[in-house]
Amino acid sequence: MSAVHRLTLGDVLAEHRRGRPAGAAVVDGDVRLTYPELDDRVARLAGALAAGGVRPGARVLWLGQNSFRVLELLLACGRVGAVFCPANWRQTADEIAYVLTDLAPAVVVWEESEAVEKARGQAAPDARWIRSGEEYEAFLASGETSPPETAADAGADDDAPVLALYTAAFDGRPNAALLSHSALIAHSMSLLHMRQMEDGFTFLACGPLFHVGTMMFTLATFQIGGRLVFTPAYEPHEVCRLIEAERCTQAFLFGPMIDGLVQANADGRYDLGSLRFVSHSPEWDAMITVDDSPWCASKMGGYGQTEVGGMLTFLGLGMGGAGFAGRPSPLVHVRLLDADGNEVPPGEVGEICARGHSLFSGYWNRPELNAAKAAGGWHHTGDLGRREADGTLTFVGPKLRMIKSANENIYPAEVERALKTHPAVADAAVIGVPDERFGQSPKAVVVLRDGAEATVEQIIEHVRGEIASYKKPREVVFTAEIPKRGYTPDYDALDAEHGGGAYPGD
Amino acid sequence: MSAVHRLTLGDVLAEHRRGRPAGAAVVDGDVRLTYPELDDRVARLAGALAAGGVRPGARVLWLGQNSFRVLELLLACGRVGAVFCPANWRQTADEIAYVLTDLAPAVVVWEESEAVEKARGQAAPDARWIRSGEEYEAFLASGETSPPETAADAGADDDAPVLALYTAAFDGRPNAALLSHSALIAHSMSLLHMRQMEDGFTFLACGPLFHVGTMMFTLATFQIGGRLVFTPAYEPHEVCRLIEAERCTQAFLFGPMIDGLVQANADGRYDLGSLRFVSHSPEWDAMITVDDSPWCASKMGGYGQTEVGGMLTFLGLGMGGAGFAGRPSPLVHVRLLDADGNEVPPGEVGEICARGHSLFSGYWNRPELNAAKAAGGWHHTGDLGRREADGTLTFVGPKLRMIKSANENIYPAEVERALKTHPAVADAAVIGVPDERFGQSPKAVVVLRDGAEATVEQIIEHVRGEIASYKKPREVVFTAEIPKRGYTPDYDALDAEHGGGAYPGD
Repeated sequence: MSAVHRLTLGDVLAEHRRGRPAGAAVVDGDVRLTYPELDDRVARLAGALAAGGVRPGARVLWLGQNSFRVLELLLACGRVGAVFCPANWRQTADEIAYVLTDLAPAVVVWEESEAVEKARGQAAPDARWIRSGEEYEAFLASGETSPPETAADAGADDDAPVLALYTAAFDGRPNAALLSHSALIAHSMSLLHMRQMEDGFTFLACGPLFHVGTMMFTLATFQIGGRLVFTPAYEPHEVCRLIEAERCTQAFLFGPMIDGLVQANADGRYDLGSLRFVSHSPEWDAMITVDDSPWCASKMGGYGQTEVGGMLTFLGLGMGGAGFAGRPSPLVHVRLLDADGNEVPPGEVGEICARGHSLFSGYWNRPELNAAKAAGGWHHTGDLGRREADGTLTFVGPKLRMIKSANENIYPAEVERALKTHPAVADAAVIGVPDERFGQSPKAVVVLRDGAEATVEQIIEHVRGEIASYKKPREVVFTAEIPKRGYTPDYDALDAEHGGGAYPGD
Repeated sequence: MSAVHRLTLGDVLAEHRRGRPAGAAVVDGDVRLTYPELDDRVARLAGALAAGGVRPGARVLWLGQNSFRVLELLLACGRVGAVFCPANWRQTADEIAYVLTDLAPAVVVWEESEAVEKARGQAAPDARWIRSGEEYEAFLASGETSPPETAADAGADDDAPVLALYTAAFDGRPNAALLSHSALIAHSMSLLHMRQMEDGFTFLACGPLFHVGTMMFTLATFQIGGRLVFTPAYEPHEVCRLIEAERCTQAFLFGPMIDGLVQANADGRYDLGSLRFVSHSPEWDAMITVDDSPWCASKMGGYGQTEVGGMLTFLGLGMGGAGFAGRPSPLVHVRLLDADGNEVPPGEVGEICARGHSLFSGYWNRPELNAAKAAGGWHHTGDLGRREADGTLTFVGPKLRMIKSANENIYPAEVERALKTHPAVADAAVIGVPDERFGQSPKAVVVLRDGAEATVEQIIEHVRGEIASYKKPREVVFTAEIPKRGYTPDYDALDAEHGGGAYPGD
């Protein structure tokens, strides 16, 4: 990568400060920033981070709700070559403590939270803790006022990781997927294309910024020089108010969130006509402008994961095809491989493997896992897929079991690990059972230690204390032995015996 | 660039053979190829080139009209790491001889042409000459039938140059701009986005494939797995017939070419409704489907050059703005620099300089020029521009003079060089004068040698024999001395004295 070909997020911002000198970049409560103002703040923040000892490769952690500061911190980290991680604020103290230990951040920017306060002791003693708000503003203001030009030109290699998102609890603990400038920019291009994001696009970030789904549209909007509206979290009336007030083109929304907006706007008090989005219900379609871009017309279908920057395939590239995942983004390519790394023929199931510009740079601090995931020069997604006769792709399901409940991914291994920390539990397996409301819900099959006792309620309460509440089993059954295939539970047998089903891809 | 991030043109083709097993890739006369068939042919052709001694970095030259073989050769060169150059077949024997000497191709694939036959002696003695047609087919068939998978996986680094296009006669001779896989793919993404090229896009390559304008849409269509229809050259009735027969979505067309189609279809015998294109005239708009993508709605505006892969900026990213060049593609960024490499403020004219993913890798065999063009890590376009107050860009004109006649770029230096080879000419300068039909036409100001004689007609005939006919002066005036600024003609003084004007950007 020669200098002439370089394109970092800082370069994108430097272009926007020139190309959109009066353009609104950020809206967040009372905060309104143009692109030059954002660039100035990012330059100061980068200066403050560098002065505070944040070196290339260091990590900066965000523990809070959505905020324009998430974008600022990402861009500032990019300038100094650091890696920014917005993490889930709603986790338990134990989960946050794990992130602090694993990521070992040099700087933590945080919002008031009991769990964060409790976990704080797990951070390295020299980590700098900065409260969002006045303390953050004072820190930013302390940054050197080096010319933005210089700061941008001194910026990192664009293949260097700049964003870390925790995901994929393969072994019961999540891993931080590292995404480079180049990967984020490539993924943004694929969304710009599929969503037909054009000049003037305004995105309302009302989903969590620690999830790739909200982050990917935030970054694509930034890439095209659009306007970003931040709100701390999804609240139906506030989302409606912001769509009207800021003339938002799109927001992070899916089924139940849309229903919430329809209810909030039942009396038509909000004008949501600026929103160009997916058709959902007659009431919704009458409130918004139904969009016909390949992204919206396909009801946002495709296959993705954090490790590929968001979406790997788009239904919009295979509308009417046999496979609901459509075809790969133009900047990636896909193979379906068997356990030996050989391609399986069309119609047969193999692991979805990928190459291309939007792929991640591995997980933070997981050399062995990274080597396995990149075997043969192909990223192994851990998901199973099938190439249909017409060439389109079908997502079949996770290679390791995954439960999907209320649009949240639940990895059995993670819940099992929590179960096994209960002193009375000898062994445990988790399956997904069909759930009318949530699609699936987790069910635990538990073997108690000889002579030990525990109630269903105690088991569930224990898990709730270990991991995020939505991952706790809704049902628990006790059994004498977990059937196994090698070292892992025989999930098929467990499903058959305990009513499992409705897995994603079924 | 790790293996996981690699994306070559061969990788794109390998994906399409899987994702579009029955999809028509290529139509050219009686030839119809699906993506798997194209991939098979490319694999054989790559095998034949490799067996014939074509090594990474070697050049393969095409001298002929448009053909699907141009695409095949490009893709095959990509697989073996060679550089493919489709050159202007309509050039004089002298111009073709220059290309043969400069490029020193290992292989020349050619179509019958008197100029090519005359120039052939200038090629290296060991260059392999292959006539398009039966000889080419026999050569291709001789290629090893290695599995396409293997061939693609053995492919070149995606930052390696794969395409060379002659352009930019700065010093009176053209230079071959080298474009890498990565640059071509990045540029394709920008067109996919701006032109909203979607699944099923069909492009009719009826402009010359040795020009970036036709090549860039050919490659973007390939990138999205669309269908490419080739025709040897623009012929209005044949273009109309192909649009109807192949349901083309787009073709390479501009003003006079469109008028030709309107005339050919005056009786409405062709159904051109599949074409989604730019509004032009009431007759034209009634024949086609007027397209509202940012590319077509902006009447294809922007700023570009071969060295940036095609377009650097798009009016569609600054519609309604002050600058007609709009804003940069999301994958590049732009600075306006003065002669010392410092940025000029908005409103002032500077050289348009750029960085980003679609930029070229320098010119073939021009180390000094390349160093100058990439000074300070910015590509210097050689063109002048201005950042308007609203951040949009205006193309002001070439830093060295350029004449634009019937949409063709004419560099005065090139015509001057031809003039000076006439035995009677001591010195010469070329300016552009306003021309009602062509916008501009070249006018020569000539100083004869002491005692020498030549008529206007003799001078024009001489130039016609040296360079492409459209570059010859339409007028010639004789004078005693050419006014100079340093070593170069004082074009402002020449314009004032000899009626120059209507330059691009005026």
